[in-house]
Amino acid sequence: MTEVERKAPAARQASIKLSTTSDQQRQNLLHAIAAVLLEQQEHILHANKLDLAEAEKAGRDAAYLDRLEINDTRLADLADAVTSVAELEDPLGTTLRSWTRPNGLSIREVSVPLGVIAAVFEARPNVTADISALALRTGNAVLLRGSRSAINTNKALTAAIQRGLQNSSLPQEAVQLIESPERSATTELMEASEWIDVLIPRGGKELINKVVRESHVPVIETGAGNCHVYIDKDADAELARKIAVDAKVQRPSVCNAAETLLVEASWAEQHLAELIDSLSSHGVTLRGCETTTSLDQRVYAAQEEDWETEYLNLTAAIKIVQDVHEACAHISKWGTKHSEAIITENPEAKDLFFQTVDASTLYHNASTRFTDGFEFGLGAEVGISTQKLHARGPMGLQALTTVKYLVEGNGQCKGSLSY
Amino acid sequence: MTEVERKAPAARQASIKLSTTSDQQRQNLLHAIAAVLLEQQEHILHANKLDLAEAEKAGRDAAYLDRLEINDTRLADLADAVTSVAELEDPLGTTLRSWTRPNGLSIREVSVPLGVIAAVFEARPNVTADISALALRTGNAVLLRGSRSAINTNKALTAAIQRGLQNSSLPQEAVQLIESPERSATTELMEASEWIDVLIPRGGKELINKVVRESHVPVIETGAGNCHVYIDKDADAELARKIAVDAKVQRPSVCNAAETLLVEASWAEQHLAELIDSLSSHGVTLRGCETTTSLDQRVYAAQEEDWETEYLNLTAAIKIVQDVHEACAHISKWGTKHSEAIITENPEAKDLFFQTVDASTLYHNASTRFTDGFEFGLGAEVGISTQKLHARGPMGLQALTTVKYLVEGNGQCKGSLSY
Repeated sequence: MTEVERKAPAARQASIKLSTTSDQQRQNLLHAIAAVLLEQQEHILHANKLDLAEAEKAGRDAAYLDRLEINDTRLADLADAVTSVAELEDPLGTTLRSWTRPNGLSIREVSVPLGVIAAVFEARPNVTADISALALRTGNAVLLRGSRSAINTNKALTAAIQRGLQNSSLPQEAVQLIESPERSATTELMEASEWIDVLIPRGGKELINKVVRESHVPVIETGAGNCHVYIDKDADAELARKIAVDAKVQRPSVCNAAETLLVEASWAEQHLAELIDSLSSHGVTLRGCETTTSLDQRVYAAQEEDWETEYLNLTAAIKIVQDVHEACAHISKWGTKHSEAIITENPEAKDLFFQTVDASTLYHNASTRFTDGFEFGLGAEVGISTQKLHARGPMGLQALTTVKYLVEGNGQCKGSLSY
Repeated sequence: MTEVERKAPAARQASIKLSTTSDQQRQNLLHAIAAVLLEQQEHILHANKLDLAEAEKAGRDAAYLDRLEINDTRLADLADAVTSVAELEDPLGTTLRSWTRPNGLSIREVSVPLGVIAAVFEARPNVTADISALALRTGNAVLLRGSRSAINTNKALTAAIQRGLQNSSLPQEAVQLIESPERSATTELMEASEWIDVLIPRGGKELINKVVRESHVPVIETGAGNCHVYIDKDADAELARKIAVDAKVQRPSVCNAAETLLVEASWAEQHLAELIDSLSSHGVTLRGCETTTSLDQRVYAAQEEDWETEYLNLTAAIKIVQDVHEACAHISKWGTKHSEAIITENPEAKDLFFQTVDASTLYHNASTRFTDGFEFGLGAEVGISTQKLHARGPMGLQALTTVKYLVEGNGQCKGSLSY
């Protein structure tokens, strides 16, 4: 029996127990977990040092080591995050709709846990505590598949979480780490649709693409964002510059940062130089269409692949377009349906953009950087879904729930057979 | 360029046009399609005769030929079904939630079409009109992949639908049939995630399993139903018998029919003989656990595989259980999370069953046969989802929509960078 064959059915059993817990029990559980995480600081930090030493020996760069490291401040933040999830509103047991049919059947649609969630993620060990807290708050069990390079840290964190479950008289199989070094363990998770209800990949593009392609378990896809800011003919010049800078520069490495600026031709004639001044002053390198390069010599010539590149750094593509229609067509061709902004004072241009562009989140006169669970006020960061089914855009706790219909009758039958 | 490579991007283009249509336009469109279907009766029935002749030559049985046949009554029904979809409430453009953030951003969550739907289905040609009507009503384009044996009928139906689109000045690429006889065309559809937003398989278990396993395009899974009726200690004897007969006998070939009866031991002692009388009088063959066979010699001995078999005929499995807990455990082990019923006068047993059993629809004192879009009052039969993500249980038009967030601001930026 492999590790997944052992742990996945145990997770299913634990999820049945969890699905019957009260809001108060689940809140207490997360507080208990936060407490154990702090109690076991010495043990967790020691385990993390083993991983850091191993990574250093393997010649990992400073950014990698930084992502991997847990120090006392970070552990305190991590415990705080668990506590804050405890305090979110209970998403379970809500009657979403209810109605009575002419035959007297009373139907209620009620929110319930998904069941078992599997998370496959890369080096950041905070995901271990983060996704466990979100899953448990919503009455789900979770199987964690972290990176090999964080194995000691993940073991220590999972042990602390399991101690919290025990202290709350709940089955510790509700949170289990898949420890096997074999790649086949990940493949097994992706095939265990009998035991696992949803698989969430957290990490780089390559990981996400692999999981989306190979998993037979339904996936919630997060990640890719080739986002655009379209500056319309009727855009306020100062507003446009301010938003373009924020969307590109404020944190270029994240999925809701802008990659391409689309600029209407007459606006460009008047204001392009100033826009480029602003971007250049923040160190942005520009790669533009022929018209842009002819207007401003600070712009390098873009290749076709620039329109589809998620730079995730201080590079931006820039293209002059004739009108909002051309902007929408460009976004439809190259966008990843994540976050798209229009800057304009013209309500008709805005309406057309809002109606035509197919993306999770459309902005009028605001930065694309607000596509985020916290910024939306959802109180949690389950992720930003880039798919259309189940959950789209910033996901709150609700994304980790499903529904069931509870139907009450007094003998209703479809036919009228003798009996 | 293959047929899918040609037609899938054209469907995407058409879907953009459709997404901007008004409710009235989409209603008119469906009325126009219903009219053309009737106008082209002669042509459609002639095409259907070609398919029927081919199927007869291939030695298909009467049931198969019956499913394939379209006669004038059936065509009229089919056109009526299109008209009735026209009259359903518009599921698009609804503001599902709206709120304003402390920074002044106003956020609206609005229902929008999914985009492009692909349907892969077996011999019944009515699916061609049915799924096209549902897709168009919800502003989606659709790619149809019907069975080879209905190719002439499907071509004629698709041509009629496309004429309806033309008559309504909408792109005929909104509904396209994939005609290629090659199996690779289906594989291509399952891989075209760039162009197709969701794939819906309609047909037998084998087709559905293949699509769920192989598709990279997200799937809405419908189908398998290993449904149970649990007769509790405190069940009214007459009510229990009536519901068991209805759930098993009224239409045994469908997914919401019951396959296994779970009977509490003390109830069985008193009432099992009568229950078996009722079922036998309708021609039901019973396959039971050891206790059942010892109590009643009309019951054959069940094998382990009986607990997981979706008979879809007049066979039922029957098992004596000690209490509601054992019933829930049995359902958790063998059920397919479709529809499960408890018959009892005891509210505690009902509550425990409702809370513990993980299935799309749970019934108290009613037949499982009501899990159905029409019976739920959703007005449409998109199918019965057996998955937990996106849509669960009976699906109305809403299952063919997604959301987008429309965010309006006046210059909001995440940071406060100079510009």
